[in-house]
Amino acid sequence: MTASITSLFGIELPIVQAPMAGVQDHRLAAAVCNAGGLGSLPAGLLSTGQLSTELAALKAATSKPFNVNFFCHVPPAPDPEREAAWRRALAPYYAELGIDPPPATSSGARRLPFNADAAAIVEAVRPAVVSFHFGLPAAELLARVHASGAKVVGCATTVEEARWLEAHGADAIVAQGLEAGGHRGIFLTKDLSTQLGTFALVPQVARAVRIPVLAAGGVADAAGVRAAMALGAAGAWAGSAYLLSDEATTSAPHRAAIASPAAAHTALTNLYSGGAARGIVTRLMRELGPIGSTPAFPFASDALAPLRAHAEKAGIGDFSPLWLGQNGSGCRTGPAARITRELAGAA
Amino acid sequence: MTASITSLFGIELPIVQAPMAGVQDHRLAAAVCNAGGLGSLPAGLLSTGQLSTELAALKAATSKPFNVNFFCHVPPAPDPEREAAWRRALAPYYAELGIDPPPATSSGARRLPFNADAAAIVEAVRPAVVSFHFGLPAAELLARVHASGAKVVGCATTVEEARWLEAHGADAIVAQGLEAGGHRGIFLTKDLSTQLGTFALVPQVARAVRIPVLAAGGVADAAGVRAAMALGAAGAWAGSAYLLSDEATTSAPHRAAIASPAAAHTALTNLYSGGAARGIVTRLMRELGPIGSTPAFPFASDALAPLRAHAEKAGIGDFSPLWLGQNGSGCRTGPAARITRELAGAA
Repeated sequence: MTASITSLFGIELPIVQAPMAGVQDHRLAAAVCNAGGLGSLPAGLLSTGQLSTELAALKAATSKPFNVNFFCHVPPAPDPEREAAWRRALAPYYAELGIDPPPATSSGARRLPFNADAAAIVEAVRPAVVSFHFGLPAAELLARVHASGAKVVGCATTVEEARWLEAHGADAIVAQGLEAGGHRGIFLTKDLSTQLGTFALVPQVARAVRIPVLAAGGVADAAGVRAAMALGAAGAWAGSAYLLSDEATTSAPHRAAIASPAAAHTALTNLYSGGAARGIVTRLMRELGPIGSTPAFPFASDALAPLRAHAEKAGIGDFSPLWLGQNGSGCRTGPAARITRELAGAA
Repeated sequence: MTASITSLFGIELPIVQAPMAGVQDHRLAAAVCNAGGLGSLPAGLLSTGQLSTELAALKAATSKPFNVNFFCHVPPAPDPEREAAWRRALAPYYAELGIDPPPATSSGARRLPFNADAAAIVEAVRPAVVSFHFGLPAAELLARVHASGAKVVGCATTVEEARWLEAHGADAIVAQGLEAGGHRGIFLTKDLSTQLGTFALVPQVARAVRIPVLAAGGVADAAGVRAAMALGAAGAWAGSAYLLSDEATTSAPHRAAIASPAAAHTALTNLYSGGAARGIVTRLMRELGPIGSTPAFPFASDALAPLRAHAEKAGIGDFSPLWLGQNGSGCRTGPAARITRELAGAA
């Protein structure tokens, strides 16, 4: 019952480049679009001004349909006690690196959920596709996205979330298997034991909804895309496969880790943002345990920011989120256009 | 580089019925063999006498090749402190059900690893295939299995385990994705964050070894088998798909749970044996948390046994291991022969 994802999005290949905040800008998106896939611009870490600038650059770089991705989490109330406990847990690292802990005010607000300003940008720019992570925005905001002409994509990590997204207006669904790198889109529960592997999630979601399903998590090459489509997916939502591409802005320590044996061991961790996300196991994850008592998403990142910046200057990724899925074997260097064609089996 | 699994095992269809100790005997194995797949007899919970009886019955019921599965864990030293703590954790349940805690001696020894007696049975019965869970037996025991003419199958949950199994004499490998029901075959580490989803594990294992790979975890129907083979598998190792079959001895509470909405939520738990295994979330798992401070595998089951027996008599599965994978949608009632043919796309 899945409509063709290529006709729904107006693209040539059933390949979507997953939005990856922090490791890409408009250049990766444009390269994928120009190769016939759907490139994505992640807005989650951008200010309104930065987003407008990036979108202008994207439109200048491609005339093809593209996707803009937004977070739509419910920002938590700041919790000074958890913030203080988190800073205490990090105290040995501040001491080791000889830097001052950052002030205890939370600027995790950099990760803003989709709001009226963002809706206005969507109305002005009219992207072909708008995708959301952590559920969908409020009905009135979502109506503005639909009215702009954009197709709406939601991210499901369980069958229940897929049904919810379809019922609330999604035009397509990303079935994000547990293998996927980066943040889990989980939004109807906090219980990580509910998270399904791609092989179990995709066919169950494809049967549960009538809209097209894009498979995410472990889809690393053309064989993976064929397998996902055999399971009922209409196409692939591939992130890790692009992390080493020429156009990605993946940091030097991150690229080095992906190309090293360390990439074989990823884990879900909440240390970097407060939300569960999959990345290569780092010194921080090993020493504190990958799941800790951090402030709620997105506030955990503030206290880490100076440690991360200091270490990265020395080329060290100990305090950096080294997002990667469980199938890092799919990471290839080279132009994103070639990676896109390879994923589609059209190389 | 994968040889055909059908020629390696001498079977018609690339479908192996995964051995499932506790929910099947020779009847399920024979039905699958007679349908052209490879049926498996789980020896892990059987005494030497019981195993001989079951094998005689299996040979009487089929003339086709079959698999016998053994555990080969290293039995831990009994740990009276952990035993006592486990009994304290279960004390409220003993009180609630009005039964006495069992004596603190560990009879988990029912789950015996492969030993000289078992090797002698293999030499006498000469099964076409012998599979092992939790690694492989010592070289001298394994040599006896090989010398009997049996093909040896090992279970890998990571790429590293797959390489180890190939180097130590396996003829084929089960790549057990995180979606799989029942006990994880993990043996080179205790770190559960190393466990990969099927979609990421199968292609990486298939590239890492030269022997055939069987995909386990979420493989629930013909589309799943096709997808697994697209990822590089030579065939499927399907367990959950047979749990509701006519020939399985799955208990009434277990069958009821699989057919209920509860089946949508499985988790890895160590409460039932001390080893990590995937099953439907039960009252015990909810109340104690799925991963607890139990005695080591296989000793946790002893203290639970009277609770389980008492509750099951009343048709209640609160204290029973309700093993199931993450793709319970594949569980079908009916004869195992039909399920086998459906998995092979030959229905």
